[in-house]
Amino acid sequence: MAASAEAPSADPPQSGDAGEDSEPVVTPWTVSGDVDYNKLVDKFGCSLIPPEMVERIERLTGMPVHPFLRRGIIFAHRELNIILDCYEKGLPFYLYTGRGPSSEALHLGHLVPFMFTKYLQDAFKAPLVIQLTDDEKSLWKNLDVDEARRLARENAKDIIACGFDIARTFIFSDYDYVGGAFYRNASRIQRCVTLNQVKGIFGFTGEDNIGKISFPAIQAAPSFPDSFPHMFGTRKDIRCLIPCAIDQDPYFRMTRDVAPRIGHHKPALIESRFFPALQGISGKMSASDTTTAIYTGDSPKEIKSKISKYAYSGGRATVEEHRLKGADLDVDIPFKYLSFFLDDDEKLETIRQEYGSGRMLSGEVKAELIQLLQDLVARHQAARSKVTEDVVDMFMAVRPMPGLFR
Amino acid sequence: MAASAEAPSADPPQSGDAGEDSEPVVTPWTVSGDVDYNKLVDKFGCSLIPPEMVERIERLTGMPVHPFLRRGIIFAHRELNIILDCYEKGLPFYLYTGRGPSSEALHLGHLVPFMFTKYLQDAFKAPLVIQLTDDEKSLWKNLDVDEARRLARENAKDIIACGFDIARTFIFSDYDYVGGAFYRNASRIQRCVTLNQVKGIFGFTGEDNIGKISFPAIQAAPSFPDSFPHMFGTRKDIRCLIPCAIDQDPYFRMTRDVAPRIGHHKPALIESRFFPALQGISGKMSASDTTTAIYTGDSPKEIKSKISKYAYSGGRATVEEHRLKGADLDVDIPFKYLSFFLDDDEKLETIRQEYGSGRMLSGEVKAELIQLLQDLVARHQAARSKVTEDVVDMFMAVRPMPGLFR
Repeated sequence: MAASAEAPSADPPQSGDAGEDSEPVVTPWTVSGDVDYNKLVDKFGCSLIPPEMVERIERLTGMPVHPFLRRGIIFAHRELNIILDCYEKGLPFYLYTGRGPSSEALHLGHLVPFMFTKYLQDAFKAPLVIQLTDDEKSLWKNLDVDEARRLARENAKDIIACGFDIARTFIFSDYDYVGGAFYRNASRIQRCVTLNQVKGIFGFTGEDNIGKISFPAIQAAPSFPDSFPHMFGTRKDIRCLIPCAIDQDPYFRMTRDVAPRIGHHKPALIESRFFPALQGISGKMSASDTTTAIYTGDSPKEIKSKISKYAYSGGRATVEEHRLKGADLDVDIPFKYLSFFLDDDEKLETIRQEYGSGRMLSGEVKAELIQLLQDLVARHQAARSKVTEDVVDMFMAVRPMPGLFR
Repeated sequence: MAASAEAPSADPPQSGDAGEDSEPVVTPWTVSGDVDYNKLVDKFGCSLIPPEMVERIERLTGMPVHPFLRRGIIFAHRELNIILDCYEKGLPFYLYTGRGPSSEALHLGHLVPFMFTKYLQDAFKAPLVIQLTDDEKSLWKNLDVDEARRLARENAKDIIACGFDIARTFIFSDYDYVGGAFYRNASRIQRCVTLNQVKGIFGFTGEDNIGKISFPAIQAAPSFPDSFPHMFGTRKDIRCLIPCAIDQDPYFRMTRDVAPRIGHHKPALIESRFFPALQGISGKMSASDTTTAIYTGDSPKEIKSKISKYAYSGGRATVEEHRLKGADLDVDIPFKYLSFFLDDDEKLETIRQEYGSGRMLSGEVKAELIQLLQDLVARHQAARSKVTEDVVDMFMAVRPMPGLFR
C-alpha cells in the first residue's frame, strides 16, 4: 500500500509529475495538482458519503463519529451501507488497512488513516488486519529486502502507538506473512487479472519489473477473510471494510471486480481526502525534504519552526488587506491542519469565522496549530516509547485470536 | 516447472502449434517438430556434455554412470564442471528438480528426470529439493487451486516411488511452501527482471494473467539455498545443480542472469533430450489422448496393446524390404524407448545391429519392449503402493534436516 492519505509520494513509477497547472494526477504512487474531489469520485465510480450515512453510523455505534467523518475528510465510500447493514444485523465484518514502509519517519499524513481506523475499531469492535507492504517498497524503491523489513517493524511501532486493541489486531509484513492460504488467494486473484488490465489501471510499462506487475494481487489478498486462517478459519462470509486514502481506490476496484469470480464478497471502502504538504495543497510531502511535513519524531522546536517558516498561509499581504478581505481559507495550510486535528468543533468554527473575516491574523492561527501539534506529537511519542520489541512481536504474531466478534 | 523430459505439453500458452513441417518449437510449454539438439544447444547457449566429462563423473563417484548419461539422453549442461570441481574438493552442492502437476497420471516421459535425479542423489549423496508447481498449473490451465494441490500430492507419490532418500529429500508444493525466505528470494528475483525480459524469454502477451508474468521467479527461487532455511540455514555458498529437460533452459538462463546481482552462485544445469510420443518423434504426448504414452498406472494388457498398435515403427513395409534395408532406427519408437529403459548395453547394441540390418523384425523388438515396460511399470506400481499418505507427509514436512552433507 502506498502511503495512504499522504498527499503525494516521492517517486511516481512511470507517469511524470504534473506541474501545478497541469491536470491533477491521482494514482497509488502520485498525487499532484489541485484535486477536485467531486470529479475524482465521478471518475473512480465511488460515492460521496451523504450526511444521513454519517448520522446512521453515529446511531448504530452509539458514540459520536470521528471528526474526520463529521468534517468530510473521510468523504467517499463503496458499499459502506452493506457493512452498516451487517453491523445492524449482528453479522461480523473486519477492517483492513496498510502502509508501505518506505521510510523510518512517519509524518502526520501517514497517521490520518490509522487514527481513523482506530476510531472504527473502537466504535464497531471490529477485528483489524494491517498490511505492511515491505515487498512493494522493495520492488518500487529498489530497497534491500532486509532494510524494507526493518522499516516495516519501525513503522509498526508508530502504528501501534495509535492505540489499537491487541486482542483484535493483526499486523503483518508481506515478507514474513505471505504464504499458504494468503499466497493461494493472491494466486487466485492473479489468475483473474491480465497484464493488459494492470497496464490500464496502474500504467505499468515494459521497463517495470515483474514483481510490480503481480503486486496488486498481494495488496488485494487481505480483502478476503480466508487469507487469515488464524483469525477467521476458512470462513468466506465475513465482509471486509477498507479505510484508505482515495489514491488506493484503483487497487480495490480491481479487487472488487475479481471478488465474485473467486467466490468472495467485494470489499467495502471508506476513503479519505489527502493530507496536504506544509507548502500548500498542491505541494508535495517529500521524504527527502523534511521541511514539507511534520514528522512524528519532530521536537516541539522543530514543529514551531516548520509551521512558522513553511506553512503556506491564506493570510493577506498586509494587515490592512487582511482585515479587509479576511484569510483565504481554501488555501491556508494552518487552517487545513486544524480542521484535521482540532477535535473541538466550536473552537474550529470560531477560528473559521474570525480568521476568515480578517479579525484573526495568520500568526495567531499558526500559534494555535503549533500548540496543538506539539501536544499531539508529544502524546504520540510517549505512546510510541512504550511500544517495545515484545509488543511488536505480539501484534505481529500469527496466533489464534479467539473472541474476535461481539 | 512444465513436465520435464516430456516431449510436448498439451497446451502452449500463446504460440501456435508448429506442424511437423514447420520449424521446431521448444519452449517450456511447447515442444514440436523435429528437434535438432545440436542447434538447440547453440541457440540456448548451453554446452554438450563431452565424453571426458562422463568419464570424470564415473571416476569421481566410483560407480557406473546412469545409462541416460552413457547414451547421450542426458546430453547438455551449464557449468557442470564447477559442480564436479566442488564435489572433488568436498564442497557441498544440492540438487533441484520439479514437476508441474497438471494431471493425476504420470507417463514414462515424466519419470525420466526423476530416474536420473535419483541416480545423481545416490551417486553424489546430495540433498535434493523437488518443487511441485501447483501454482503454475493453476495459473496456466485454469485449474482450481485445491485440485492443483491434490494433483501435486498424487504426483508426489509417483515421484517418491522412484526411490529418493527421505533423509536428503524435501518435496514441496508451491501453494503450501512459498512464503518467508522463499518468498523473499522470489521477490529479489522479480526486482531484477523486467516485463520486457519475460516477454522476450517466454513470449507472454497482454492477454496473459499477471500470475504467469511473475511465475518465472517462483521457479527460479529454489536455485538458491537460502530459500530452504530448514535445510541450509542462511548459507549462500552451497551450489545448486538442476537436472531437467532442455525445454526448461529458458527459466534457468534467466535465473543465472539474476544470480550474481542478488549475491548468489549461478545454478548449474544438466539437461536431457525429450522423451518421444508413441506416435513418433514429432508426435505429441497428450493428457487427453492416453494412446500417445505409457502411463505409470497402465496394466500389462494396456502396455502390450498400446505398443503393438500405436508405437511408430521404423520397420519397412514388407518383410522383403525390411530384410534388405533394415529398420530406420532414427524414427523407430520401440528402439528409442529401449534406448531409454534397457539397462543392458550389450543387449541394446545387439538389437541395434540385428534390427538395423533387418535380421530382427519390428514385432520382435516390440515384444522386447513390451516385456521390459511391463516389468518396469509393475515395479513402479509396487513401489507406489507402499507410498502412504504418512510417507508423503514426511517427504513434504518442513523439518530440520541434519547431516545433509557427507
